[in-house]
Amino acid sequence: MKFQIDSYIKEKRAVVDKKLEIIFRKNKKELSVLNDSIRYSLLAKGKRLRPVLCLASCETFRGSLSQALPVACAIEMIHTYSLIHDDLPSMDNDNLRRGVPTNHNVYGESTAILAGDALLTDSFNLIVAEGNKKKLSPETICKIVELISNAAGSKGMVEGQAIDLAFDTKKNISEDDLKNLHSLKTGSLISASVVSGALVAGAEIDDIKNLKKFSDAIGLAFQIKDDLIDEDGFRRIGKSGGSDKKNKKSTYLTILGREKSMALIDDLTKKSINSLNKINNDTTILKSLAGYLGKRKR
Amino acid sequence: MKFQIDSYIKEKRAVVDKKLEIIFRKNKKELSVLNDSIRYSLLAKGKRLRPVLCLASCETFRGSLSQALPVACAIEMIHTYSLIHDDLPSMDNDNLRRGVPTNHNVYGESTAILAGDALLTDSFNLIVAEGNKKKLSPETICKIVELISNAAGSKGMVEGQAIDLAFDTKKNISEDDLKNLHSLKTGSLISASVVSGALVAGAEIDDIKNLKKFSDAIGLAFQIKDDLIDEDGFRRIGKSGGSDKKNKKSTYLTILGREKSMALIDDLTKKSINSLNKINNDTTILKSLAGYLGKRKR
Repeated sequence: MKFQIDSYIKEKRAVVDKKLEIIFRKNKKELSVLNDSIRYSLLAKGKRLRPVLCLASCETFRGSLSQALPVACAIEMIHTYSLIHDDLPSMDNDNLRRGVPTNHNVYGESTAILAGDALLTDSFNLIVAEGNKKKLSPETICKIVELISNAAGSKGMVEGQAIDLAFDTKKNISEDDLKNLHSLKTGSLISASVVSGALVAGAEIDDIKNLKKFSDAIGLAFQIKDDLIDEDGFRRIGKSGGSDKKNKKSTYLTILGREKSMALIDDLTKKSINSLNKINNDTTILKSLAGYLGKRKR
Repeated sequence: MKFQIDSYIKEKRAVVDKKLEIIFRKNKKELSVLNDSIRYSLLAKGKRLRPVLCLASCETFRGSLSQALPVACAIEMIHTYSLIHDDLPSMDNDNLRRGVPTNHNVYGESTAILAGDALLTDSFNLIVAEGNKKKLSPETICKIVELISNAAGSKGMVEGQAIDLAFDTKKNISEDDLKNLHSLKTGSLISASVVSGALVAGAEIDDIKNLKKFSDAIGLAFQIKDDLIDEDGFRRIGKSGGSDKKNKKSTYLTILGREKSMALIDDLTKKSINSLNKINNDTTILKSLAGYLGKRKR
């Protein structure tokens, strides 16, 4: 029987959604605008790609999903904070996200900035506090916090966004420039999602290395696919189609063209699966996810 | 011989400044605007109150200053991020900070937001990565990350800033409202500074409790003093004097008046020292810091 990746994603997404709803439960305090604003963006329908990867990786190494869930949710919180801040008027100035008006359009710029700040800060609190409760060892918790903060900070995602903003005015952007940008802006957190799940499960160092190669490849494939989807305007929900073109941004499509971009996605998907073949555990789920990401329509 | 608090602060400040300079060393990469922007705000002359409190607290319990230094610097990074974000046009819209133009006035709004995001994220990385290197136990590192992220996040500093923004339009702000605001916005991170230093040193739970009372009292006294200094326009460097009045903000001065505010600072300082008297270790440094904070001119 073929593994049903769609059902798997749907099931894990529901687990993550439920947990996120509990973390930022609707409170009845007089001043709840910050909490409302956090809930607005965090609970909007997201793909939950990163938490699903984290849970799938943990499952691959027979780890406890209950222990991985706070880590998965923390990564989604970090991803959501980055979306809220990236959408701000002084950044990408986007009006639509996940099918609804962006956070600052609903709650105002200052609250949107604070919602992002809170999500980022609370994500580390969640990893440690819930990790402790769920008997994850302090050594493992430390490894995970170090991994994720490194992926998200000044040597990872934030630097990626800074480079992206600088590219708005830079000419002659090469394929290598784009690869570096995406590796920082998107790839690093995707990679941390996969690796952190394996850390929860106590995977061996060699397996972690192969997972890193796997996640680097799918991270880049994911981004190229994003460029194609954006151009096609296929996003039925979320940002309006063609927004990169509108902003005259360099993308894989503008640099490599459609054929080469699609071939590159196939190459990267194959490469990611080759890395998984070096792992002794059953990697069906991760392989299916790699295939899914390369073929998704949104 | 009387303990020289001024020399103590000067000495510790220099140690912190030196370490912060190393953490965000000037790099020679083509794109270093993010790093430049971080350095601009982080290395501007700050009081370094929070890191000094952290180091002093660690010293009080005979802990390793080398182990406490990354924690102290991480807290200063979080404090700096909060200043950069609070100064943004959509927040307090300030033009001067620490005697120089605010970050967004020099680097633009988007880079200022990213500099804050990077400082916040990297602070947790620093605590874990350097804590590990310096043989701080993973248990202690976890306790510190949990403490600081709790103090800085949606139940601490960020919520405080959200409340502060809401007060701009709220009428009839009471003394209790102000106390709650400052306890979240300023007090929580000051308290985390003191407690984290003691955690590095492995202080006992009863001592931690008394330190918490100590730091809650000096945190509030610090803020009331800030209101007085702001009104007096005594700040020779930093924000221009009277900025709260300009914004018609409620402060301890507008609610209690000068006499009562000054009496309250004295009361809180005494209260803080009483809490220290319950600790068996030599608390001279912390007591001197409490006295210094109540009397400072800027």
